[in-house]
Amino acid sequence: MCSDFRVTEGTGSEMHALISELYPICRSITGNGFRRTMEIIRKHIPIEICEVPTGTRVFDWVVPKEWNIRDAYVKNSKGEKVIDFQKSNLHVVNYSTPVNGGFSLSELKNHLFTIPEHPGWVPYRTSYYKEDWGFCLSHDEYSKLEDGVYEVFIDSTLEDGHLTYGELCLPGERSDEVLLSCHACHPSLCNDNLSGVSLLTFAAGAIASLPRKYTYRFLFIPGTIGAITWLCLNGEKASKVRHGIVVTGVGDAGPLTYKKSRRGAAEIDRTAVQVLKDSCRDYKIVDFSPYGYDERQYCSPGFNLPVGRLSRTPYGEYPEYHTSADNLEFIRAQDLEGSFSVLMEILFALENNGTYLSTNLKCEPNLGKRGLYSSFGPEQLAMLWVMNLSDGQNDLLDIVERSGMGFRDVLRAANLLAENGLLENRASACSPINQSSPQAQGPTEGK
Amino acid sequence: MCSDFRVTEGTGSEMHALISELYPICRSITGNGFRRTMEIIRKHIPIEICEVPTGTRVFDWVVPKEWNIRDAYVKNSKGEKVIDFQKSNLHVVNYSTPVNGGFSLSELKNHLFTIPEHPGWVPYRTSYYKEDWGFCLSHDEYSKLEDGVYEVFIDSTLEDGHLTYGELCLPGERSDEVLLSCHACHPSLCNDNLSGVSLLTFAAGAIASLPRKYTYRFLFIPGTIGAITWLCLNGEKASKVRHGIVVTGVGDAGPLTYKKSRRGAAEIDRTAVQVLKDSCRDYKIVDFSPYGYDERQYCSPGFNLPVGRLSRTPYGEYPEYHTSADNLEFIRAQDLEGSFSVLMEILFALENNGTYLSTNLKCEPNLGKRGLYSSFGPEQLAMLWVMNLSDGQNDLLDIVERSGMGFRDVLRAANLLAENGLLENRASACSPINQSSPQAQGPTEGK
Amino acid sequence: MCSDFRVTEGTGSEMHALISELYPICRSITGNGFRRTMEIIRKHIPIEICEVPTGTRVFDWVVPKEWNIRDAYVKNSKGEKVIDFQKSNLHVVNYSTPVNGGFSLSELKNHLFTIPEHPGWVPYRTSYYKEDWGFCLSHDEYSKLEDGVYEVFIDSTLEDGHLTYGELCLPGERSDEVLLSCHACHPSLCNDNLSGVSLLTFAAGAIASLPRKYTYRFLFIPGTIGAITWLCLNGEKASKVRHGIVVTGVGDAGPLTYKKSRRGAAEIDRTAVQVLKDSCRDYKIVDFSPYGYDERQYCSPGFNLPVGRLSRTPYGEYPEYHTSADNLEFIRAQDLEGSFSVLMEILFALENNGTYLSTNLKCEPNLGKRGLYSSFGPEQLAMLWVMNLSDGQNDLLDIVERSGMGFRDVLRAANLLAENGLLENRASACSPINQSSPQAQGPTEGK
Repeated sequence: MCSDFRVTEGTGSEMHALISELYPICRSITGNGFRRTMEIIRKHIPIEICEVPTGTRVFDWVVPKEWNIRDAYVKNSKGEKVIDFQKSNLHVVNYSTPVNGGFSLSELKNHLFTIPEHPGWVPYRTSYYKEDWGFCLSHDEYSKLEDGVYEVFIDSTLEDGHLTYGELCLPGERSDEVLLSCHACHPSLCNDNLSGVSLLTFAAGAIASLPRKYTYRFLFIPGTIGAITWLCLNGEKASKVRHGIVVTGVGDAGPLTYKKSRRGAAEIDRTAVQVLKDSCRDYKIVDFSPYGYDERQYCSPGFNLPVGRLSRTPYGEYPEYHTSADNLEFIRAQDLEGSFSVLMEILFALENNGTYLSTNLKCEPNLGKRGLYSSFGPEQLAMLWVMNLSDGQNDLLDIVERSGMGFRDVLRAANLLAENGLLENRASACSPINQSSPQAQGPTEGK
Repeated sequence: MCSDFRVTEGTGSEMHALISELYPICRSITGNGFRRTMEIIRKHIPIEICEVPTGTRVFDWVVPKEWNIRDAYVKNSKGEKVIDFQKSNLHVVNYSTPVNGGFSLSELKNHLFTIPEHPGWVPYRTSYYKEDWGFCLSHDEYSKLEDGVYEVFIDSTLEDGHLTYGELCLPGERSDEVLLSCHACHPSLCNDNLSGVSLLTFAAGAIASLPRKYTYRFLFIPGTIGAITWLCLNGEKASKVRHGIVVTGVGDAGPLTYKKSRRGAAEIDRTAVQVLKDSCRDYKIVDFSPYGYDERQYCSPGFNLPVGRLSRTPYGEYPEYHTSADNLEFIRAQDLEGSFSVLMEILFALENNGTYLSTNLKCEPNLGKRGLYSSFGPEQLAMLWVMNLSDGQNDLLDIVERSGMGFRDVLRAANLLAENGLLENRASACSPINQSSPQAQGPTEGK
Repeated sequence: MCSDFRVTEGTGSEMHALISELYPICRSITGNGFRRTMEIIRKHIPIEICEVPTGTRVFDWVVPKEWNIRDAYVKNSKGEKVIDFQKSNLHVVNYSTPVNGGFSLSELKNHLFTIPEHPGWVPYRTSYYKEDWGFCLSHDEYSKLEDGVYEVFIDSTLEDGHLTYGELCLPGERSDEVLLSCHACHPSLCNDNLSGVSLLTFAAGAIASLPRKYTYRFLFIPGTIGAITWLCLNGEKASKVRHGIVVTGVGDAGPLTYKKSRRGAAEIDRTAVQVLKDSCRDYKIVDFSPYGYDERQYCSPGFNLPVGRLSRTPYGEYPEYHTSADNLEFIRAQDLEGSFSVLMEILFALENNGTYLSTNLKCEPNLGKRGLYSSFGPEQLAMLWVMNLSDGQNDLLDIVERSGMGFRDVLRAANLLAENGLLENRASACSPINQSSPQAQGPTEGK
């Protein structure tokens, strides 16, 4: 057992606090809001902040112009601000071009967006790849707008600049990597995806202090274009990804949902399934589909990385999705903590999986003479399973799957047997903790 | 997309009309009734009428003597015809030897067949391989027969002659073939199998006018002995069969039923399953069994051809089966048309299946800049699936199976992507319509 | 068909009678009780009684000292025997060391065992690997014990001696073996496992008189240490085991339960599943787990023999398990007979399984001309299945699985076809009965 990977109770509140700090910032796929977000994260973990210039060709795409915004409002003929960016950055369509002028109500309405079914909520809208401007507001406010001339002002810039992202590598004993990725480009939206940002920040903080077999790479990137950019510029690193998870929407009250990688039965997929099964929580397992978050890019056929996705209620299946109702009240500390806990349990299982060889392949060993035989119970049974299946062909995950027992139970049995000389480590499992520094990386060991 | 393969509404009535024309003819596994049937079909499609001499050895069998019948009746002692072949050819046991003589009622009864459970119906009986004679009649009529001497007359011949069958080959771009086979040896019975005869006649007519990838071969044969004869004499053609369907019993009101080939997961099997799943009709899929129609021969182990069967209610599961109640009222134009439509949809999918290669294997392409990005819906999702799985390993059928989308939706997406340069055809799919004449056959391209 | 393997009605009573004869003997994993048991079995079948000296190293274990007991009791201060070994050998903890002395009630109680939930029953306890002594009694009797000094007497010996087991080999045409094993070390307990002992005694008696393809090896051994000892000393024989079953707990009223071998889909597993499915009895199939009886050793990874287990209610799932209530009334002749019958049916299927080759691979043969064509029914269908699948790749068990028909139906069809020259035996099935003596063993024919 490399280390414990257990989450300290109460961490959920700290995660929620970080989200509260990040919430007011107007993020987009580029710009200063994203940069400020990275700087706040850097107060917790030593991410490298990377900048990729506008115009850089990344596969079929081009890094867009950088967008920044200072202020925006709509004033009615009485000079009252009927829409005000300072109250919520959701009011401005993300990537809106600058405007300053008068518009009749009917002209203005072409640029207004509401959610009639939820008249009190403000929608979240973007216009990344079409130069345009617009405002989002609640349908209630929209209904109050009277005829007249409106002063529309958006103090934004859309200019050559950079796409920013944050990256952190925590080297482990081995050079093959676990990729943990989240999108961090959404403005004042909590579940999608400050929850993911916060979870990975805390995960990185925890893992940094733990001995570990794998190297861990954390990405805080703008959605889609960020993943494409990173993959294009980091082919070498991508080739080292042995397991990966995209983390998003992990703060709502819905059941934890693991979406399998395109491979469908990669070790990460099998591990996540077993951990969720054993978690005593409601959960769902869904098959890969090419729609979703950045797993779309990681699982594109030319990469086909073993990258799944951990969420709670999937996007679009909760009405608050992409609205002002995805706010600080929508997410709860306890749910953030539960998600964190399951992620760490998955990583724990990946870390501690390994193939052992029983030293008694022919017939059971005499457990009694070693003091390992007690009244029959789950511990005894786990030992029998580990001994019976440790023929060099099955790793602990195979034993978990076949026995139906939990990973920690199987691991505990394996450790007990190994301590008593009844099991030999076949090198792919985690080495003892008190070993050489995790910074010293060996060559990549593929499976 | 080669062509549409959609069935024109109203075709069911034409199919029913052809059945009505064929219905009165006294067919058998040999003889002039079968020949006349072929000649009527030849008014619709240019089948070749083939004749195989009596005595020809075909595997374990021998082509039997040819049977012909002109008239038959049973007269009571008053000279009244109590059974009359002119009223229905079902009244004479098929392949009855000639008779002319007087019989007591009890002698006669050894040669009479009825269906006591359906006293108004006349059964259908044959005696192909045992020389004998007999009459079939309703149990009601049978019950009225009084003691006395009956004059029995059967003006038939059983002599050396030929086994007749009809064959039509419609060459396509490729020399590998789709085999469509039906038995045409039953006399006045509509569902079994004038429905199949009519459907394949109309299918041949439709396909003849469509550009096509595959060569299509249509067989109108006597059941069992016809399939055995054809397979024995046409080993070369049989070896080119890449997909095949036996069509029978497709005019009743039951759900469409696809019986898988012996292979179980041949492309024809997988295609038929997907088409039926997507057809919004009731349907059944049944596993191969060695009992049934001519799929028994096509799927015998020495051939093991990928030939399934399309029916509605399987034989023997409806009481009208092999009785006079399988008449022109038992089958309906709308059901014939529905069956035709599904067959054509299966052929359409076979024609248009193919393996493509995405031109953007690494990360998704930018759909927006090509005008392919719209609000998310099934079309968008189908494009994502096609791009994600088109790594050269998956054909469209694989994509249909994994995505759960319909074949036409997936194909439409593939075409749209191909038109926009995002997908390359890997040669096994259908070529463009405006290509070289379909008569020019290239060498066989196996999979 | 080698032979019938059907169980004569009424055998259950004889099985029960043998159990009654063995019931009073105080057996253990070594000693004279086990020897006497073997001698009684030898009156039925010619087992060899093998003796392995104390101290023999067998893999990770050592053959223990031999335990024998002549008498034991506990007397109260009035000199009354309150616990008496002569009334039931369960009263003494098996492997108790000798004792002779006075004990206060509280001292004595440290050595007493009861079942409070079943106050009328005496538990069964052992202390094989820890030198100790003890008594078992009903909780009712225990509750009556009054304060005072008790005279405790156990006239046992624990000395160097031997581990005894019985073995019988019935050679067949082939040298590969069917292993049938039971533990015979339990004292006055009927279901666990005199039922297994009796069943294998009768099975050996029956098989001895039947022509057979396989060589049969019967083991009557002490649990765990017996299997380990046998496997250690008989590696050569173990390597010849092609199929095997551990038989235990086959006399209670519960449904027959087959536990699969570690391989999970060995021929024995597939055969047992099909026989039970076709048995018209309640049954259960359970997956392998490394907990249970001697299948633990046979299925240890270094052997991984295709050995399953046949039981009724699994150990520990009935309250009478390992108590005095597992007595002569708990087991019934009819259930013993039913278990015997299913075991023999499994062996029958193993004996008669084989791969055939149809002599008519291309198209069906003409059954009619051979008199094999009758009105359609299961027999006809079985012939069609056998012919269709006998392409040299499928054995009869494959045909049973795919057709859903019973083994005997499929075999009957195969025999009928073979008699008519329509099927050739491909050597792995059983040879005709009237062949050379089964004693003449050929070289091992592995699969």
